[in-house]
Amino acid sequence: MKIALLGGTGDIAEGLVLRWSKVGHEIFIGSRSDEKAKGIASEYIEKLNDLGIESKIHGMPNADAAKAAEVVIITIPPEYAAATISQIKDSFTDQIVVTPVVSMERQEDKSFVYSPPPHGSSALEIKEALPETARLVSAYHNLPAKELSKVEEDLDYDVVICGDDEEAKEVVKKLTEEIPTIRVLDAGPLKLSAMIEAITPLIVNLNVKYKQHFSVKFT
Amino acid sequence: MKIALLGGTGDIAEGLVLRWSKVGHEIFIGSRSDEKAKGIASEYIEKLNDLGIESKIHGMPNADAAKAAEVVIITIPPEYAAATISQIKDSFTDQIVVTPVVSMERQEDKSFVYSPPPHGSSALEIKEALPETARLVSAYHNLPAKELSKVEEDLDYDVVICGDDEEAKEVVKKLTEEIPTIRVLDAGPLKLSAMIEAITPLIVNLNVKYKQHFSVKFT
Repeated sequence: MKIALLGGTGDIAEGLVLRWSKVGHEIFIGSRSDEKAKGIASEYIEKLNDLGIESKIHGMPNADAAKAAEVVIITIPPEYAAATISQIKDSFTDQIVVTPVVSMERQEDKSFVYSPPPHGSSALEIKEALPETARLVSAYHNLPAKELSKVEEDLDYDVVICGDDEEAKEVVKKLTEEIPTIRVLDAGPLKLSAMIEAITPLIVNLNVKYKQHFSVKFT
Repeated sequence: MKIALLGGTGDIAEGLVLRWSKVGHEIFIGSRSDEKAKGIASEYIEKLNDLGIESKIHGMPNADAAKAAEVVIITIPPEYAAATISQIKDSFTDQIVVTPVVSMERQEDKSFVYSPPPHGSSALEIKEALPETARLVSAYHNLPAKELSKVEEDLDYDVVICGDDEEAKEVVKKLTEEIPTIRVLDAGPLKLSAMIEAITPLIVNLNVKYKQHFSVKFT
């Protein structure tokens, strides 16, 4: 498939790009800066070359990356995500859009708390920024970036998703389960996203305390 | 230890009573009705007898159960929990109090959403109902009652706890890890409880969809 990663320059973007390239998908890295996007695309191509994997990765401005793709992942920091999507709203028609966006606040005691926008969740904020034809799925909030980027390693995690378009969720499920050995669990409609997003700051706190890169599994 | 289960007549109470009795703790079942508490206590004693386990289980009104115990578990439905604690506030001095209370709402589409009280979480609401000397720990939100009650089975779950009293959390951790093979993870201060509580409705939705009794594990 043609997959765009907007702001695809850090965090979980790298792992997703490497792993999806490995199974043959075409990747469109978006950034505010065309130059930065192209630079990062070259880096990913080189990393994959070193692993003996040929890839189709292109760098371009966010708007063009969104237009070029069937599936668009919003790997943009929470404070910019909805505003960026608003700015490039015209680039979206009926793409599947995936939001892993989580908004959290660091407290004085250094613990993180879930701090959703007034919409109730980042997913609902982003839904409002998108045209109604775009099909939003909330997913990937709790994938540990570091483990994800180790492309040779299996990941014994659950990815919990939610969304209002069943077909879009099915596509995201299939794409995600191409990453061995992730399991996708569908939690229901998009309005439940807050409960998935809230797990992320919890995991961040646990990671700090236990010096781990936790993800979550439902057993 | 002397452990009270207030409203200890259903859900996770049974599993906790059976498993803690098995390792020798003394149990105080509390209920609004003394008669009901004594009836349930007899049932638990009988169940344990059938398993060849001798137990020390007593039934009594909630206020007396709270007074008698070093650790008090609030297994009361969310809509009554804080009010019940308020009513028997005088029964608490410096006990360790454990809240597994989660408030959720069923939507028209039958999905459940986390619906905390105005305090931000059920834990913070219950904290306000208790005297300041009581040491509140938030825990056990996501233990599946049915699996918990099968006393011969190991439980490969994580129990995520939070609270402001380190010693109290340590006691709860030890008590909990007497249930094989649960692992306790400390998420930090009590004010983070909302993020733990919010996992419960998520799991309820997953249970309905996948016909499972999910619990959670951080891997």
